Amino acid sequence: MPEVIPENSVGLVTPKIQHFDEPLTLRSGRVLNEYDLIYETYGELNADRSNAILICHALSGDHHAAGYHSMDEKKPGWWDNCIGPGKVIDTNIFFVVSLNNLGGCSGSTGPTSINPDTGKVYGPEFPILAVRDWVNSQARLADVLGIDVWSAVIGGSLGGMQVLRWSIQFPDRIKHAVVIASAPKLSAQNIAFNEVARQAIAKDPGFHDGWYHEHGTIPKYGLMQARMLGHLTYLSDDAMKVKFGRELREEKFNFSFEPEFQVESYLHYQGEKFSTRFDANTYMLMTKALDYFDPAAAYGDDLVACLSESKCRFLVVSFTTDWRFAPERSEEIVNALVHADKDVTYACIESTSGHDAFLLPIPRYLDVFGAYMDGVAATCGLTSGGKA
Amino acid sequence: MPEVIPENSVGLVTPKIQHFDEPLTLRSGRVLNEYDLIYETYGELNADRSNAILICHALSGDHHAAGYHSMDEKKPGWWDNCIGPGKVIDTNIFFVVSLNNLGGCSGSTGPTSINPDTGKVYGPEFPILAVRDWVNSQARLADVLGIDVWSAVIGGSLGGMQVLRWSIQFPDRIKHAVVIASAPKLSAQNIAFNEVARQAIAKDPGFHDGWYHEHGTIPKYGLMQARMLGHLTYLSDDAMKVKFGRELREEKFNFSFEPEFQVESYLHYQGEKFSTRFDANTYMLMTKALDYFDPAAAYGDDLVACLSESKCRFLVVSFTTDWRFAPERSEEIVNALVHADKDVTYACIESTSGHDAFLLPIPRYLDVFGAYMDGVAATCGLTSGGKA
Repeated sequence: MPEVIPENSVGLVTPKIQHFDEPLTLRSGRVLNEYDLIYETYGELNADRSNAILICHALSGDHHAAGYHSMDEKKPGWWDNCIGPGKVIDTNIFFVVSLNNLGGCSGSTGPTSINPDTGKVYGPEFPILAVRDWVNSQARLADVLGIDVWSAVIGGSLGGMQVLRWSIQFPDRIKHAVVIASAPKLSAQNIAFNEVARQAIAKDPGFHDGWYHEHGTIPKYGLMQARMLGHLTYLSDDAMKVKFGRELREEKFNFSFEPEFQVESYLHYQGEKFSTRFDANTYMLMTKALDYFDPAAAYGDDLVACLSESKCRFLVVSFTTDWRFAPERSEEIVNALVHADKDVTYACIESTSGHDAFLLPIPRYLDVFGAYMDGVAATCGLTSGGKA
Repeated sequence: MPEVIPENSVGLVTPKIQHFDEPLTLRSGRVLNEYDLIYETYGELNADRSNAILICHALSGDHHAAGYHSMDEKKPGWWDNCIGPGKVIDTNIFFVVSLNNLGGCSGSTGPTSINPDTGKVYGPEFPILAVRDWVNSQARLADVLGIDVWSAVIGGSLGGMQVLRWSIQFPDRIKHAVVIASAPKLSAQNIAFNEVARQAIAKDPGFHDGWYHEHGTIPKYGLMQARMLGHLTYLSDDAMKVKFGRELREEKFNFSFEPEFQVESYLHYQGEKFSTRFDANTYMLMTKALDYFDPAAAYGDDLVACLSESKCRFLVVSFTTDWRFAPERSEEIVNALVHADKDVTYACIESTSGHDAFLLPIPRYLDVFGAYMDGVAATCGLTSGGKA
């Protein structure tokens, strides 16, 4: 709990819920007749509505990116390092919108919501989504908020994929794309990790083919394993070495199957925590959206042709020890943008923190990101206060 | 099934079982009063017993390293690429011994064996082992076979750890140590992967705390997940890209949670196959032996001091895309050996196949390995036929 909210925080924030009743046709062909999106905003939308920024979240993220929901909240939103007055995404300049994606479990319509057609929880009947579906729903939210053009769309990991999709799907509605620790599509290895995680959930007897709500169970161990595995891919070998090494919980080996090394306890703790807060069906469908993402596929696997659709400027950032989406994956995007004759800034940031680095206040990262955002403000004719 | 057994095969082989009734005190303090080791031999032991080679197997390996058990066997032993007449480990020169380690599930005493104290299957009451326990039991097998000194002890991965342990535990009984794709100890990341695999097994409702035999079940899905995860760490990102890419099973996405990509089907198939052939308690204890291995710990974490105990020559081999035990891990061993003033040959082999490369007939690998083995024969005064 923050005893006093820091001065560079956006402070107390209250999420809003927007209901949509225009049917949304999804990539799969299925239709959502109506849905809610929960979102937060930080900063003020200026008079000519030219200072808006969209934040796209990653696999297990949500709309609560900055500030506090109450004075009792222990930690601020997940990207509070970057969003706030005077911060990289400066809420004295920008109006920041952060939503929970469709299919999520934090307030937007998803598997835990009531299906209006049946009056029961969607559960596994909630449609499997693609990244473009999120982008389409985000565009509708922009319409409601009166935002014709985002000064920037920003996201890390799966969030970065949404940014890429924005750049080609609504090229006239985005001036800057900030794609952090992301990839133009998953590799076979990435897909394989997702499938192992999904199997852990699907084979948990508490899963009941996704109908666990009706059975009063949760696939707790499956979620724990999925999260433990996720953490393994978010952290670098180096980061784990620094953080845990081979340190034991007790002084010596106990020759049992209880956790003996600190790294085991840490993963158990993270898995346990996640299993009580996250919805299993949401986890399943989020990983599928990752698997499906491959915008170049519609262009004969030509990423240059694909990104040629875009009209915005790009910042692409990668981290040296990220092995989930290694720098080479960001460089595929950068190379394609260069070949497509787009304006792109690229930085590969030295870090020992693996994929998780994109959430951390690494000085060089914040410098590069901040300098780019100063440029965003300048090219959008913005100064402090968001006034053009 | 081999229609005709190839000329460079060791041919049809029959495993032998050796019973030991001298109690073996284990690293954990527990005692095995009696036990069996199953083993195979290839080639002939020469008159002065100077041409013997010990093969140490990895996590899921067994004693069947070369040749065929019958004309109906589809594939030869797991290291048939390297063991046979005229091959790298030339059975015209060497007498090769390959055993299933204690705790295994292929014929040596392990969790599936009858506990003589209770008359029931050991199950989870089988003691957790350390690498040194295997080496001690292997030394006893050497005694029975009349082998005072191995001309070489050879192993990959967990097998390489047994070789390292041999070099310091019985420095007078080993002339050459061949340590392939191994590490001086697991990293936190390695331990974490093992723990996720163990959790998958332990939390499978078919596991019954290891008493599945009594319940007539097996933790099938747990074993599947453990193996899927294992495969992920054995294959490189590159190898998976070449082998599967993003190829789909059907022409388009089906927006379901059934496997859609080829890599998913492959992992399911591998997991399924493994779950019907391997014992879960054995998998659990083999991964613990990996976790525990850290021979330098007894020397104040000084690997140089530890390896100073050895008297043999070393060949250390790593593979460029191995990320389970990356070349840097082999180089830790090599650097320590150099500082300990030992005779060491090191090769880092270019390969796209990840950790699995150590099992594959990669020309440069076989060249280096073969040249070293020629040297082993020479330093042991051996020529073809194993005659000194």
